[in-house]
Amino acid sequence: MERTLVTDTVEKVRKKVRLEGWADTIRDHGKITFIDLRDRSGVIQCVGESLQHVSPESAIEIEGTVTKRPEKLVNAKIKTGSVEVQIVKLRIISPAAEMPFDMGTEDLNLELPTLLDYRSLTLRHIKQQAIFKVQAVLVDAFRQAMIKKDFVEFQAPSIISSVPEGGAEVFKVKYFEQEAYLSQSPQLYKSLLVGVFERVFSVNQIFRAEPSVTTRHLTEITSLDAEFGFLDSWKDVLEMEEYTIRYMFSEIAKKCSDELSLLGATLPKLSGKIPVLKLREAQEIIYKRTGKDVRKEKDLSPEDEREICKWSLEEKESELIFISHFPTNSKPFYVHPDPADPTYAFSVDLLGRGVEWSSGGQRLNNYQDILKNVEKWGLKEKDVELYLQSFRYGVPPLGGFALGAERMTMYILGLKNVREASLFPRDMERIDTRLSPVKEKSSK
Amino acid sequence: MERTLVTDTVEKVRKKVRLEGWADTIRDHGKITFIDLRDRSGVIQCVGESLQHVSPESAIEIEGTVTKRPEKLVNAKIKTGSVEVQIVKLRIISPAAEMPFDMGTEDLNLELPTLLDYRSLTLRHIKQQAIFKVQAVLVDAFRQAMIKKDFVEFQAPSIISSVPEGGAEVFKVKYFEQEAYLSQSPQLYKSLLVGVFERVFSVNQIFRAEPSVTTRHLTEITSLDAEFGFLDSWKDVLEMEEYTIRYMFSEIAKKCSDELSLLGATLPKLSGKIPVLKLREAQEIIYKRTGKDVRKEKDLSPEDEREICKWSLEEKESELIFISHFPTNSKPFYVHPDPADPTYAFSVDLLGRGVEWSSGGQRLNNYQDILKNVEKWGLKEKDVELYLQSFRYGVPPLGGFALGAERMTMYILGLKNVREASLFPRDMERIDTRLSPVKEKSSK
Repeated sequence: MERTLVTDTVEKVRKKVRLEGWADTIRDHGKITFIDLRDRSGVIQCVGESLQHVSPESAIEIEGTVTKRPEKLVNAKIKTGSVEVQIVKLRIISPAAEMPFDMGTEDLNLELPTLLDYRSLTLRHIKQQAIFKVQAVLVDAFRQAMIKKDFVEFQAPSIISSVPEGGAEVFKVKYFEQEAYLSQSPQLYKSLLVGVFERVFSVNQIFRAEPSVTTRHLTEITSLDAEFGFLDSWKDVLEMEEYTIRYMFSEIAKKCSDELSLLGATLPKLSGKIPVLKLREAQEIIYKRTGKDVRKEKDLSPEDEREICKWSLEEKESELIFISHFPTNSKPFYVHPDPADPTYAFSVDLLGRGVEWSSGGQRLNNYQDILKNVEKWGLKEKDVELYLQSFRYGVPPLGGFALGAERMTMYILGLKNVREASLFPRDMERIDTRLSPVKEKSSK
Repeated sequence: MERTLVTDTVEKVRKKVRLEGWADTIRDHGKITFIDLRDRSGVIQCVGESLQHVSPESAIEIEGTVTKRPEKLVNAKIKTGSVEVQIVKLRIISPAAEMPFDMGTEDLNLELPTLLDYRSLTLRHIKQQAIFKVQAVLVDAFRQAMIKKDFVEFQAPSIISSVPEGGAEVFKVKYFEQEAYLSQSPQLYKSLLVGVFERVFSVNQIFRAEPSVTTRHLTEITSLDAEFGFLDSWKDVLEMEEYTIRYMFSEIAKKCSDELSLLGATLPKLSGKIPVLKLREAQEIIYKRTGKDVRKEKDLSPEDEREICKWSLEEKESELIFISHFPTNSKPFYVHPDPADPTYAFSVDLLGRGVEWSSGGQRLNNYQDILKNVEKWGLKEKDVELYLQSFRYGVPPLGGFALGAERMTMYILGLKNVREASLFPRDMERIDTRLSPVKEKSSK
């Protein structure tokens, strides 16, 4: 008999079906046993008499007949809540060992370390699955938004030969007899490819040797990168980013309504265009609202980010806000200064729900300007050789932005720790399993 | 004035347009100058009198009027061949330095090292661009094929803590105070995720410390990985792979006809189902056809691969062929032996055009069987801890396959070297720029 997916049973009342999946929860009422069967499509209640023992999370096959539930026993919370399956035959495909904790609860009430120690098991909980189904839609929606706008996908390399922007938080790789590094960003590659394809995007792992364990940092991140040329203005970058974000939100709304409601999450509120403030304007507002004078700081502190997001929601009914015009000398060598006041740059952060979601902006495209900055920033020409090569041959005004898939997932779903938004989070204490504690250096 | 894309000019005869792009080729006929302008959509001939000097590959803006070309001057080879633009205004957006070689030829007649030394420039040639436009469609088609079959995308990690399958060709990473490695394959992650999502896929960079420079090997590869559970038979893997490949081919045929014809490439011929031979059957055929007795070899040599592909095309009219049932002890610990003869395994290679395209097969899913093999293969349990954890809790029969994006691009387009199918190829001699030669160790 052909396998039927769980959610298709509602169309097969009074029919015989064969189901495959996992024994999600098992309720034993003496002779009668209820098994909630979970497959990739959903969960369904199955009921049978005098069944063989099944342990939770075993992979099983059930043959039986779909019946309508009595009106008062309908479970409106799940898609298959109007039916159940009368078990005729039960087969254990692959038995599960005894659970180290109860997986059958509405929430997995585990501390983060335990959640990660048992990652291949805890991910099976439908709320854990929901996080990564949203993430998959988010990532694909980014790509489809880009493709609709003629962006060409490229595969950004991970192994790089030099670290032009400083090597403090970079991982070293032993590359045969030489030293190489893991890329912290595809920035230089995506910019130089504007000279080739005009518009490019990539979805790639990037690496940061974050020496501390925080709720927002991972050593390996999935970066969603976009870059494009022939800008008429730096504001073209904002428009492209806003279009992309809105497209991603609309796809999540369309394809993940079940997951959002399961997780009690709502997409950020937007009304009209996403507001844009210059850094100094934002700081002025913060000063007026709180009395805290941050008007000379080169960046917003976490507290400032929360305050300006509060303002945005209260005054502009928007949970997202762009902040532009950071001091030029606080940014990388490729940043494009605003000709109206070159001490500030066409750099743009996107903030949402009190935190930074993305950064981007317009980049320098004039070869001589770039060359001057390479020197001014204290870099070596040979470390940015391929980049310089591109701009030597006519690259138009360009810009772009980068979004972190895990952080976006975290902020959209209201998760407390970015590790919850990474299937296999890496930090200085963990690569899947906990790393053995580093031996203390002998004290002097 | 709004920018018009080059290919949209054919709809704007007698209209004024503003174009942006690169000066692809420039032909100076005294007072009259012809400029072929290239943008992301195509190329168009523009013509003007007494123009300022423009160097090839400069980014330029042209304002002018679209006119129909006289019948005898129509260029049927390009989409805009029926029109040209009479230049009214020419502006240099970003000038290009003098070319190190002629970019305006039909083919870029460069040796591979030069092609790569000037990567950010040579990629601009439309034949180079075409390679990576096909690759982008290929990669996206893989993902869309998977999504249509309910596969969930996941982000496979690159940094791993141990190398269960041996460390000969693995890159080491200095991970804070410890040692970590770059992943050679997402195999263990995709298999353990079958316990979570049933069906998963990933598109990720994988890393091989190939100690030699060949035409088929890179140190960094884009791997297209699929894995799924609840197999009824190992042949389900073949069916899923064939479906996926056919979908990828059909998308390339639909979206890349211009690129294929520009590159003189044709998609592999398929008729009926892709043929399947067991390794021993293939070797018997090779013996009968050539007299060469390879019937006890554990794998096909490159020569054997060419011969069996020839047979497949001649006898089955198929440029692709599956080879199954390799010796179990020549495969990794997770391979599923055929119960009918456990010395051979449910492992499957896909060959095409004389070379290997992919490998895959059914994996062991019974926890005890896996545990036995971990010991038999001489691995440490703690090196596959997360993997074992998953299979301890009920994983159904599963299998999958992996395709290399660069190799597929290479074989579909008939390229001679896999480096031509990688935007930024890495090997032991090059990471973008050539690596400085390693100093010879002092001779004893």
